[in-house]
Amino acid sequence: MDIIVLKPNATEEDIRRIVKKLESRGLGVNISKGTERTVIGVIGDTSKISEEEEDAIRVMPGIEDVMRILKPYKLASRDFKADDTTVDIEGKVIGGRKIQIIAGPCAVESRTMIINIAEKVKEAGASFLRGGAFKPRTSPYSFQGLGEEGLKYLAEARERTGLPVVTELMDPRDIEVVIKYADIVQIGARNMQNFRLLLEVGSRDKPILLKRGFSATIKEWLMAAEYIMSKGNQKIILCERGVRTFETATRNTLDLSAVPVLKQLTHLPVVVDPSHGVGKWDLVAPMSKAAVAAGADGLLIEVHMNPEEALSDGEQSLKPDYFKKLMSELRPIASAVGRDI
Amino acid sequence: MDIIVLKPNATEEDIRRIVKKLESRGLGVNISKGTERTVIGVIGDTSKISEEEEDAIRVMPGIEDVMRILKPYKLASRDFKADDTTVDIEGKVIGGRKIQIIAGPCAVESRTMIINIAEKVKEAGASFLRGGAFKPRTSPYSFQGLGEEGLKYLAEARERTGLPVVTELMDPRDIEVVIKYADIVQIGARNMQNFRLLLEVGSRDKPILLKRGFSATIKEWLMAAEYIMSKGNQKIILCERGVRTFETATRNTLDLSAVPVLKQLTHLPVVVDPSHGVGKWDLVAPMSKAAVAAGADGLLIEVHMNPEEALSDGEQSLKPDYFKKLMSELRPIASAVGRDI
Amino acid sequence: MDIIVLKPNATEEDIRRIVKKLESRGLGVNISKGTERTVIGVIGDTSKISEEEEDAIRVMPGIEDVMRILKPYKLASRDFKADDTTVDIEGKVIGGRKIQIIAGPCAVESRTMIINIAEKVKEAGASFLRGGAFKPRTSPYSFQGLGEEGLKYLAEARERTGLPVVTELMDPRDIEVVIKYADIVQIGARNMQNFRLLLEVGSRDKPILLKRGFSATIKEWLMAAEYIMSKGNQKIILCERGVRTFETATRNTLDLSAVPVLKQLTHLPVVVDPSHGVGKWDLVAPMSKAAVAAGADGLLIEVHMNPEEALSDGEQSLKPDYFKKLMSELRPIASAVGRDI
Amino acid sequence: MDIIVLKPNATEEDIRRIVKKLESRGLGVNISKGTERTVIGVIGDTSKISEEEEDAIRVMPGIEDVMRILKPYKLASRDFKADDTTVDIEGKVIGGRKIQIIAGPCAVESRTMIINIAEKVKEAGASFLRGGAFKPRTSPYSFQGLGEEGLKYLAEARERTGLPVVTELMDPRDIEVVIKYADIVQIGARNMQNFRLLLEVGSRDKPILLKRGFSATIKEWLMAAEYIMSKGNQKIILCERGVRTFETATRNTLDLSAVPVLKQLTHLPVVVDPSHGVGKWDLVAPMSKAAVAAGADGLLIEVHMNPEEALSDGEQSLKPDYFKKLMSELRPIASAVGRDI
Repeated sequence: MDIIVLKPNATEEDIRRIVKKLESRGLGVNISKGTERTVIGVIGDTSKISEEEEDAIRVMPGIEDVMRILKPYKLASRDFKADDTTVDIEGKVIGGRKIQIIAGPCAVESRTMIINIAEKVKEAGASFLRGGAFKPRTSPYSFQGLGEEGLKYLAEARERTGLPVVTELMDPRDIEVVIKYADIVQIGARNMQNFRLLLEVGSRDKPILLKRGFSATIKEWLMAAEYIMSKGNQKIILCERGVRTFETATRNTLDLSAVPVLKQLTHLPVVVDPSHGVGKWDLVAPMSKAAVAAGADGLLIEVHMNPEEALSDGEQSLKPDYFKKLMSELRPIASAVGRDI
Repeated sequence: MDIIVLKPNATEEDIRRIVKKLESRGLGVNISKGTERTVIGVIGDTSKISEEEEDAIRVMPGIEDVMRILKPYKLASRDFKADDTTVDIEGKVIGGRKIQIIAGPCAVESRTMIINIAEKVKEAGASFLRGGAFKPRTSPYSFQGLGEEGLKYLAEARERTGLPVVTELMDPRDIEVVIKYADIVQIGARNMQNFRLLLEVGSRDKPILLKRGFSATIKEWLMAAEYIMSKGNQKIILCERGVRTFETATRNTLDLSAVPVLKQLTHLPVVVDPSHGVGKWDLVAPMSKAAVAAGADGLLIEVHMNPEEALSDGEQSLKPDYFKKLMSELRPIASAVGRDI
Repeated sequence: MDIIVLKPNATEEDIRRIVKKLESRGLGVNISKGTERTVIGVIGDTSKISEEEEDAIRVMPGIEDVMRILKPYKLASRDFKADDTTVDIEGKVIGGRKIQIIAGPCAVESRTMIINIAEKVKEAGASFLRGGAFKPRTSPYSFQGLGEEGLKYLAEARERTGLPVVTELMDPRDIEVVIKYADIVQIGARNMQNFRLLLEVGSRDKPILLKRGFSATIKEWLMAAEYIMSKGNQKIILCERGVRTFETATRNTLDLSAVPVLKQLTHLPVVVDPSHGVGKWDLVAPMSKAAVAAGADGLLIEVHMNPEEALSDGEQSLKPDYFKKLMSELRPIASAVGRDI
Repeated sequence: MDIIVLKPNATEEDIRRIVKKLESRGLGVNISKGTERTVIGVIGDTSKISEEEEDAIRVMPGIEDVMRILKPYKLASRDFKADDTTVDIEGKVIGGRKIQIIAGPCAVESRTMIINIAEKVKEAGASFLRGGAFKPRTSPYSFQGLGEEGLKYLAEARERTGLPVVTELMDPRDIEVVIKYADIVQIGARNMQNFRLLLEVGSRDKPILLKRGFSATIKEWLMAAEYIMSKGNQKIILCERGVRTFETATRNTLDLSAVPVLKQLTHLPVVVDPSHGVGKWDLVAPMSKAAVAAGADGLLIEVHMNPEEALSDGEQSLKPDYFKKLMSELRPIASAVGRDI
């Protein structure tokens, strides 16, 4: 017994009684109150519970179902929820038939810049705008992002174009300001196992784009999603962005097999970031096509007006015209796998 | 100066004179006599040759062009040959508009078995038959293949279906017998840097399918192709089959970005083996689609009548019906990237 | 010009003038006020500064030296500081002749437990006590540590044994409470690129033990140290703890060559954690010996009274008797490389 | 039942009867006739044999013991042979108390060169001479070794110094000539899974130094040893030489934990090649010390008179004086772990 699913009408008194019962068996609980139903995750060695005891628990008031899940991730598992999860941002659905394209610069560099790119990517058919205001940079001497100022420019770009905004959160202390402006909060690869940050975003009602760590296994990645879900936030979008290998011809090795593997293991939507995956702009188009063919629910693509002058990641950014051309090339592939773009 | 391209009508005397000239400068030579033209690869530190000396060599009788190639691989480089190389096997062209599907079992297990599968994969639309008679197995106690008997069965399957045969060579001492029956000789991942084997197949006039080593960089892979080409055989097909990473959800990590990277660096055709790349049959279909979308010139797919009873690699083999369904799903994707299947 | 080293008697006015000068050239600054001297790191493209301009800056009041450092890390580089850095914690010096042994459990499980282990490891010859109160666990359902309660127990163990305490900080919001009890603050592998956390500990005057990320290159690791140093805190101890590879016989692959590589590149002391590096208690002794022979300045070893009942990492923990035996085996090796333990 | 160990006086008739019995159960056999005893490896699914049948086999004439070994490698396993294997080459024992140092150049470049180095390394205390006559080079245009001429020079160097010779075999067709001159035949990293080459050396009575493949797991490496042993040759020395990771500061990542892991899993001796492991001469000394401390039975160290002019691997070769100094530094470490050098 790992997960207790409550009835929609379960009372606080019901919950108290269940928790007491479990604690008397030396087990802890994790209560996730979702918008639709409340789930009690049981913490500790549940193999100590006999089948008889489990049956006795199953019939307690307020309980709809009691489940044993063999995988270490529970709420994120397909075993727990068979249907695909979809994340709806102002009517734009990630995880549905339509493949969503999230485009924009690596970093917001100025007000004009982000508004210009937003208009360009919208025109080319993108559904979401990406852009970093808080930037995790390898060097403390590199441009670290514009901070809240950058968030305001993103919000203005959204107002002008209607594109919801994806932007990164690096520090739990910035959560209020980022949530104020962002439509989707990105957790970057370097923070995939920043567990305190995960718990913080887990306790808010904002969609989260969770990037895979540089060398995270798929299991660890799902455990990171479980951290967020354990706090009640089920709106998670997984983002493959390449793993670290010995190969030096590309910045990372984009692991597209992660897409079908995740489709088996979890109900969460999966998007792919080919820009970081390969690190070279002229490889982005073929890998975007491959990602769509592999079953991705969306793409994260870096676009910049003048890649050669970008303050970060210029070498992997597309110019708007090239991005537009790519969008038109992706449509027949989406169609070939029964999707729209 | 790294490569001297001879005129079609260059004489043995011309060659002798050029070689003598180079040797007088302390350089060695590697003469590749292709069907169309002869190329002299210059061995040693060519930076010792001054521009004046190079000009003097350039005008020697029999010489068409003298080239400096910065990459460590010369004949395999796009700098050396800008046009795509195509390999023609009895009218079936690898590297052209048509994406070629090479299908069949991991190992030839019996005469009936290989003939049955050959008929099934042909019916489903495959163009080539694969099957191992000499099998590189991790354990000396595992089934090692039927040897020449297996090759004979492959040849019989070819006669019945018209499908040219791809089969592996593991030992230079087996080259005569393998060449006798095979249409394409496969060099497996474990032998990618078995340089003596590469030199041996390089001196024959048979198409070679060169698999990428488990942890070979793209550069090392092209150097292995260069070994073959340095002996005169230019008919090489590169085959991506996954690299080794920390991830355990898949057998290997299929590096599809290798396809567009290779398309930039080399003129040689590139095929993908999703079966070994992922190691699980239910991931083969999405990764086959992704490979086609990424620009692969062909696919190598394991098909078996009863995967659960296969003597090797059963868990990654498709049943014929499933393979047939995959073929029909690949066609619109090929079409979306301007190719046929 | 990347680093401007100020004279000990440089005034605020001197600094203001230098900053203004640099800003007029479009450059930013990072001022690190160490206990001994203040250093101005120059941010931006310093190649824009001509040699003449650099000479003019060099003679400004308050400047001792102006340096160009080719490596991306500046303050952490051997080029910047040729002498070994030593970190002195109440008279126990890390980075000197004596190899310091930091021992204790993975997690503080109770008051009695940590006091018992502290006494045992002290008796065996350890110089520092390790123990986690805030634990980064892969699963949200695993024991997450005792929090501040655990820190108090650590402090009590220190009072009883005199062993300074090393414990992990995971969240910038916990810095006050951790600093209150810890003698050395550990930044764990998963947080090596949690840049906000690095900046936070960089602005305090506490020694930092910075673990290498799972798949961090040595360069990235030094850049993480640079983040801390850029805020003024120079008391950093680097800790190799294994990297992620394809090998499954060990939990990680302990990269001991990192020790001599770091000794060339940086002046910071380097310790090794063989317990996490291999993940199996019976491999800890040979790898501890190897680490000492390779030149490590210290070891981090997990010790537990009953490893089979440990709440985390039991399989890699030594029992006190075994640890004591190991200590006696390490002494002649330390002596063989000119060190003491 | 995986292994049947025969009595020293078992007859051919006994063997025939056992083989017949096994074949009647659908199992194959692999007969290894060692100098001391003959072992029958049982090929196929031995779980089909019931306990009663196994007991019936156990009492057949000529059988000493019948064993089930859970690991995929049998003859190489500690379960099969608990005592350490030692390999004796003209009185110099690898795997005993004395740590053997194998030193010399990467490649034999000339007669004078190899004789000079042999004398120098002998003087410094080396016990064996290494040097390649057949060189596996990444590029077909690089120096490929002197071939048989180089072998002759090695033999002459042995005659002069008394140092037994270790040299590489790349091609099964060269086995006679290599065996004629070599005392230990090296199988290089690239050929670790060249199974035909393994079988070929397995059927000869020569000690084999088997290097670990670039990205071979320890299990695969032991399976490669099993290939050799399955043909009767038990004189195998395993050589760790670094694995491939994402780190670029070193040529490979030397996996010293492989030493104690192997000491648990196998009875075969283990040596370490720090020169290839790190690829930089100034890291060879600390890693040599670490290897000795970790329990290695020997070291393989590249030494060259003029590393900067070496035809291969110059950057990782030690000069003779430096090597001599290293030898003197290794002695106290060997002594600290209860060994001699």
